[in-house]
Amino acid sequence: MSAARKTIRLPQTLHMHRGGELKQVQLAYESWGELNERGDNAVLIFTGLSPSAHVTSSPEDPSPGWWEEMVGPSRPIDTNRYYVICFNSLGSCFGSTGPDTCIPGTDQPYRLSFPVLTVEDIAQSAYMALPCLGIWKLHSIVGPSMGGMSALAFAMMFPGYSDNLVLISSAPRATPFAIALRSLQREIIRSDPDWHGGNYPLGEGPIMGMRLARKLGMISYRSAGEWQQRFGRERIAEERKSGDPFCIDFEVESYLEAHAAKFTGQFDPNCYLYLSRAMDLFDAAEHGGSVAAGLGRVDVKRALVMGVETDFLFPLAQQREIAEGLRRDDREVSFEALDSIQGHDSFLADMDRFRPVIADFFD
Amino acid sequence: MSAARKTIRLPQTLHMHRGGELKQVQLAYESWGELNERGDNAVLIFTGLSPSAHVTSSPEDPSPGWWEEMVGPSRPIDTNRYYVICFNSLGSCFGSTGPDTCIPGTDQPYRLSFPVLTVEDIAQSAYMALPCLGIWKLHSIVGPSMGGMSALAFAMMFPGYSDNLVLISSAPRATPFAIALRSLQREIIRSDPDWHGGNYPLGEGPIMGMRLARKLGMISYRSAGEWQQRFGRERIAEERKSGDPFCIDFEVESYLEAHAAKFTGQFDPNCYLYLSRAMDLFDAAEHGGSVAAGLGRVDVKRALVMGVETDFLFPLAQQREIAEGLRRDDREVSFEALDSIQGHDSFLADMDRFRPVIADFFD
Repeated sequence: MSAARKTIRLPQTLHMHRGGELKQVQLAYESWGELNERGDNAVLIFTGLSPSAHVTSSPEDPSPGWWEEMVGPSRPIDTNRYYVICFNSLGSCFGSTGPDTCIPGTDQPYRLSFPVLTVEDIAQSAYMALPCLGIWKLHSIVGPSMGGMSALAFAMMFPGYSDNLVLISSAPRATPFAIALRSLQREIIRSDPDWHGGNYPLGEGPIMGMRLARKLGMISYRSAGEWQQRFGRERIAEERKSGDPFCIDFEVESYLEAHAAKFTGQFDPNCYLYLSRAMDLFDAAEHGGSVAAGLGRVDVKRALVMGVETDFLFPLAQQREIAEGLRRDDREVSFEALDSIQGHDSFLADMDRFRPVIADFFD
Repeated sequence: MSAARKTIRLPQTLHMHRGGELKQVQLAYESWGELNERGDNAVLIFTGLSPSAHVTSSPEDPSPGWWEEMVGPSRPIDTNRYYVICFNSLGSCFGSTGPDTCIPGTDQPYRLSFPVLTVEDIAQSAYMALPCLGIWKLHSIVGPSMGGMSALAFAMMFPGYSDNLVLISSAPRATPFAIALRSLQREIIRSDPDWHGGNYPLGEGPIMGMRLARKLGMISYRSAGEWQQRFGRERIAEERKSGDPFCIDFEVESYLEAHAAKFTGQFDPNCYLYLSRAMDLFDAAEHGGSVAAGLGRVDVKRALVMGVETDFLFPLAQQREIAEGLRRDDREVSFEALDSIQGHDSFLADMDRFRPVIADFFD
């Protein structure tokens, strides 16, 4: 744990969106820049499923963050101008309360006794934490992927709290195709005998299940076109082959293997299951009877909604639907469809296309 | 085993495309209609990965076949006019020699000692079997999906043997995206402890791995748009839920579960692994130095190449590439891009669109 990571204890019990409650909730966070005197320069960033609160480097933690090129001094979200905060999502495993943390007053982790997690709970917990940081209003809420769902939930639940809203490669609700992919990832993890019904020793557990789920994740995060360009039918060198009749043969298989190896051991499997399902459960229509009515609750001055054509997990049509739903006569709503070939992950991979759009919005 | 299934023993040793050999190869097959006196009305159908030779019903086996509406009396491939033959692919588990059959002279199945299987071997074994049926030339070769790869391999390896070629939702070589999906399916099966390195008791084995691989298969065989229409965010009835926090909740999850349950136990896992890899390995470029040169070896009078826009496993651009590669001044080559929403499986699911095109070609 780096010196950049700080922790807030929520002052009240968190009543969960689908029932149940959490007491003594902790949220890990990092922040960059300074809150100005008027208190109107705070930018709240929600994360995708797997990142920590370490969005970008700082003197306290010089390691590169997950959105290093986007956030920092003189970067598109300029920490010389803005006070930027990111919480590790409720339910995640990088310092915040989640299935891997202990039930207060016990030495037993929640595991599957953790209540059903929703992105509304992620938004609610952030909302409850902000006053502890002296924040009573936001300049902007920004969220890519699952973070966009959390940001949208926040904006629907607390209209008027933020002047600006930036939703990137996100969705007002999951498609059945995205649900199928995530449901299968969860089943792969749960089918690993080492999952033990959620009762694995923390830090160990279903390593193979997590590896395979991560590979399926990578397949859903990128695009066929990108891989055609990058890998085609390239083979790995003969000397790297194991000789096993089904060993890694193509470069694309080696690429997936490397990503899977990097991921496992880093992320708690039960946390993964809860966060993954939270994305399936999110539906803007629950906030008003229809997606349009849910989006109608949002009260911001400006909004930017963006995505890419090659994203099949959070398809562009869903970004268009959000943008249409946010449009008002007195509101500036931009919709940006980018040409990136890296699929859903483009907001992390194609910085040359994403940076200028975000920079323009914040300028 | 039905009375419709017959078996041929290949008269010669089969020398495999990537090395190794198989002796005393058996191929199961079914046939419909009669070979005419000129011997010029034989239609050879190659199958996709999972079907048996039971393309359509017959008096000997009245159960519906996998392409029941396409093949039969007065159907698009009209068994009143054509003598239709389908072999269970070499390496498959419905009566043909494969990893689940015994090494000649022993009571031990091949398992992983089976040589590397390619679609060229499937084509070669069919070619060697045809004379046993009195067939020395073909009216047509027809193949959907993996069957299209086998059909194309046959046409490149034995130019002039068939007058007509029909390739449906197929590819001249697998994309890295398709390879990634299939590689992950294979790894899921191999990671199931019940696979036992391929040495499971036949008829048992990695049930869970096969279930999960089948679910991933279904995800890759259909399309996001179809599921949006069919399922949206429909939930299953409360009383069908198990109470487990990650139990089936959405209808799309229940649909995958039903398909997985139907598949497992039917298909031998080692056979699945070999056939799946055969698709990854196929590359028309091996037959001439480039895909175009490989396609240049094909010598037919007419060809029909078809596919659907929503297929992301065998994308339409690959069908277009085949059609372009087959075009000659003196050859009738049709390319048909259909509007079906059922993705790769459309050739099985959207018969109303596929039937007339095939019927026209055979008329």
